[in-house]
Amino acid sequence: MRIALAQLNYHIGNFDGNLQLMRNAIVKAKSLKADLICFSELSTCGYPPVDFLEFRDFIHRSMNVIHELAKESFGIGIAVGSPTVNPERAGKDLFNSAFFLSEGKVVHIAHKGLLPNYDIFDEYRYFEPAKEFSVFEFKGKKIAITICEDIWNVDNVNPMYDICPMDQMINEKPDFMLNLSASPFCFEHTQDRLDTIRNNALRYKIPIFYCNCYGSQTDIVFDGGSVVVTNNGIIHDEMPYFEECIRCYDLNEINNTQNNIEQVKIKEDLIYRALILGVRDYFKKMNFKSAILGLSGGIDSAITAVIASDALGPENVTGILMPSHYSSEGSVADAKALAENLGIHYEIIPIKDIFNSYESTLKPWFKELPANVTEENIQARIRGMLLMAFSNKFNHILLNTTNKSEMAVGYGTLYGDLCGGLAVLADVYKTEIYKLAAYINRDHIRIPQSSIEKPPSAELRPGQKDSDSLPEYSILDPILYQYIEKRKGPNEIIAHGHNQDLVLRILKMVNKAEFKRYQSPPVIRVSYKAFGSGRRLPIEGNYLY
Amino acid sequence: MRIALAQLNYHIGNFDGNLQLMRNAIVKAKSLKADLICFSELSTCGYPPVDFLEFRDFIHRSMNVIHELAKESFGIGIAVGSPTVNPERAGKDLFNSAFFLSEGKVVHIAHKGLLPNYDIFDEYRYFEPAKEFSVFEFKGKKIAITICEDIWNVDNVNPMYDICPMDQMINEKPDFMLNLSASPFCFEHTQDRLDTIRNNALRYKIPIFYCNCYGSQTDIVFDGGSVVVTNNGIIHDEMPYFEECIRCYDLNEINNTQNNIEQVKIKEDLIYRALILGVRDYFKKMNFKSAILGLSGGIDSAITAVIASDALGPENVTGILMPSHYSSEGSVADAKALAENLGIHYEIIPIKDIFNSYESTLKPWFKELPANVTEENIQARIRGMLLMAFSNKFNHILLNTTNKSEMAVGYGTLYGDLCGGLAVLADVYKTEIYKLAAYINRDHIRIPQSSIEKPPSAELRPGQKDSDSLPEYSILDPILYQYIEKRKGPNEIIAHGHNQDLVLRILKMVNKAEFKRYQSPPVIRVSYKAFGSGRRLPIEGNYLY
Repeated sequence: MRIALAQLNYHIGNFDGNLQLMRNAIVKAKSLKADLICFSELSTCGYPPVDFLEFRDFIHRSMNVIHELAKESFGIGIAVGSPTVNPERAGKDLFNSAFFLSEGKVVHIAHKGLLPNYDIFDEYRYFEPAKEFSVFEFKGKKIAITICEDIWNVDNVNPMYDICPMDQMINEKPDFMLNLSASPFCFEHTQDRLDTIRNNALRYKIPIFYCNCYGSQTDIVFDGGSVVVTNNGIIHDEMPYFEECIRCYDLNEINNTQNNIEQVKIKEDLIYRALILGVRDYFKKMNFKSAILGLSGGIDSAITAVIASDALGPENVTGILMPSHYSSEGSVADAKALAENLGIHYEIIPIKDIFNSYESTLKPWFKELPANVTEENIQARIRGMLLMAFSNKFNHILLNTTNKSEMAVGYGTLYGDLCGGLAVLADVYKTEIYKLAAYINRDHIRIPQSSIEKPPSAELRPGQKDSDSLPEYSILDPILYQYIEKRKGPNEIIAHGHNQDLVLRILKMVNKAEFKRYQSPPVIRVSYKAFGSGRRLPIEGNYLY
Repeated sequence: MRIALAQLNYHIGNFDGNLQLMRNAIVKAKSLKADLICFSELSTCGYPPVDFLEFRDFIHRSMNVIHELAKESFGIGIAVGSPTVNPERAGKDLFNSAFFLSEGKVVHIAHKGLLPNYDIFDEYRYFEPAKEFSVFEFKGKKIAITICEDIWNVDNVNPMYDICPMDQMINEKPDFMLNLSASPFCFEHTQDRLDTIRNNALRYKIPIFYCNCYGSQTDIVFDGGSVVVTNNGIIHDEMPYFEECIRCYDLNEINNTQNNIEQVKIKEDLIYRALILGVRDYFKKMNFKSAILGLSGGIDSAITAVIASDALGPENVTGILMPSHYSSEGSVADAKALAENLGIHYEIIPIKDIFNSYESTLKPWFKELPANVTEENIQARIRGMLLMAFSNKFNHILLNTTNKSEMAVGYGTLYGDLCGGLAVLADVYKTEIYKLAAYINRDHIRIPQSSIEKPPSAELRPGQKDSDSLPEYSILDPILYQYIEKRKGPNEIIAHGHNQDLVLRILKMVNKAEFKRYQSPPVIRVSYKAFGSGRRLPIEGNYLY
């Protein structure tokens, strides 16, 4: 039996587009003499469809894709994911389902049993979990279908769930498993996922065909990396990450695989490619072509420009330099050098006249009051407004360049440098930013060395340095990591050897900045705890204040 | 037996503050000779604590409040809500629990069985649902404790749940039920809630003491309205809405009640009071005193000013008039008249010079390109920036004045009129705005009649009217309601008799505006489907595009 896996890039709610993608893949699979083709979780409608699932019309359209695909299933079996209506009165309205289509008919329907409801996942909001699972026969082989999380409770080690679908199905002695996934990228997860798939193969002693999607949905990146694992836990094939791939495998050959071909994974490489895909897909799916961003001469805007340039082509990226009287000469030179290295357009717009007009307009009220954060914010907001004016006039999308350390402690101006359609780096801590820059410059200098080496500064007042208001990033970031990623309270973090006053001050800064993050752009997620829908905290919360 | 209900205003994560509130209430209840006092759901930590629940430190602090309250329980029983650790390895880490404390000890613990996981609720993200429920005895009476949603599956009519806690407990013949709730306001829910409580009393033939909290948590308003219902379903007492209340009831008297004292509920009155509480609490809990807002002369900013003035006192409200050359004379006059009616400060700041400085700064790039939405947005953003400058310099919080119709279709400028710490009216459709204005003016004119009567306009270009870009609100709003509140698809809405092209155009506008709403301020929720955490839709979604 020949089994094709199709690692495709779906678009939420774009039913015609998704159908066309799958039709094309079926043509290719047929040309590869596949007996069946496997798509990924909710491939009819894209993942995560979130509250679109509450529209019956959306479910109908999704089911129409299934009916259309059934017409393509003559001579080839098709495994495809779709939301379906739960026919029972009791329980949630929907199931998260996988269909197996053959010869124009629905041969089998499997419903997802383990519904993730943590971090960015809200599946229990929509779906009823299945309780019973069974295999089906196709061309003399018994197939077990699982959907994504269904394989994440092997040996019942996951305390979130009390069932394990494969424990039921293995009694029916399936010949192999198909898993339809929509498994998002984070840099730790790529390896965890592979280990989990392997553990399933070893536990049940059957080959697994694991089909993930790729592509981004605003903040969430799906990395692909679909795999075929033998019944001995050997990686027979690991598809590329962050790109389309359709391959066909012979079941007999798989069972004879001896060579484990697992890919080497480098953290910075994965993050870099995830961010490029995040930017590229945002533009493609929003039907935009060109990006604009502010270039400060600093490392964050430099990396953002590199990513935009690699994602969209340098001809589609415009950098705007907006020096003030507090900007150093070096900043302008570094920003120009970067733009020239990348071959992107750049423009220099002075903000002085506009700043003066605000000052004189506000003078009757502000009188002789000393300049403070108000004036710093005005500068940052003039820059945000100029970028938005360019964006509006020339149909660019503004990319935000804030990093995770700044976003965490609220070191940024709302409606100023926090503007943008998409925050490219806001899930990358400043200490990781330096590693990413080194990775980008590994073969030749793209980011000017002085942008990397100079002390970070917002340049909003004379001689300002980030370290005036914040501890060094090498001290700040590990505390943020313990609080944000590890969910540790102050006492646990202090017990790690961090200064008590500093820990309490930083945690308070993080919590107080919630109102800014609420209005910030979506953040491309690369860690397992990004700002956005996976991290939900109250604006008025008084914890650790 | 004498039972006190304490309808209090908790602050999320403010453990000391919440403890002090409850201690004060216990003192009062003792003075009223209460045998027991009942607080509301998760009263130790405030509701909804969202991801703070993932911090063990947060749970410990919450449990400390329980231990402190136990010390106050000599001579009085105390029913109080707190998150607790689930001791079982399997299942979610936590329970949503209610403790009954007496004579320094924990007498009984009840865990919530029905966990809401829809709209603004995410309880399944954190909590394991209880499966078993039992009553306990206190001073010779058998008490059944339920927590909020636990009573929302009477007669198993709610398809979301397959158990009903009271169906188990009624077998133990309880003398009465205590329900600890954190039930948020929406104008339809106030009556539904009362009906549900009554249905429980009638079904189980026992009196119910229902204790809700009041107060707002940024976007979510809790309205109080705690009630005591007899075993015949008669409303023995209905506490006031939107305010603190501690009252004590004699169980014997309740069983003899004949008079149903249900309060009359007027939609506009409820919404108006909810919005006032929403604004007042936001400032109190964020530790801010004074508000600022832009006054356009239109009805939305006028209502926002009235609400701010009633919430904070007119002396704590500043209105800023920022006319441009497209503003009518009438607009300025109306805004002034409003400010004088209310007794709030106002200032007039011209935006012309700043606008000119943007135009001349951008001239080298914009050249002779015709003015378009770019220049309209610049005006709106200058206003936003001036308001933020005042906010920063004088420590005001900016209130956003956008209404729900505008927020739905994206009729507003990001970083411009969409700025603000809190969106006061963004869950009130324009057609409801008029009714609210009439309600506010019911006794005497506070909002100038011409603000109410003139055609809505953003005044960003000569002679502009909302109706140039949008259908009349009387046509728009019913379509938005079907789509947003009722989750109807295009065919269903068209079948209601609406024009097909118009429906498709409006639904597309709503979906395309998701990127703006993502970065908009939190919206005070008064309907059952507000923009914010209760409505989750993808920015890149292509549905109905």
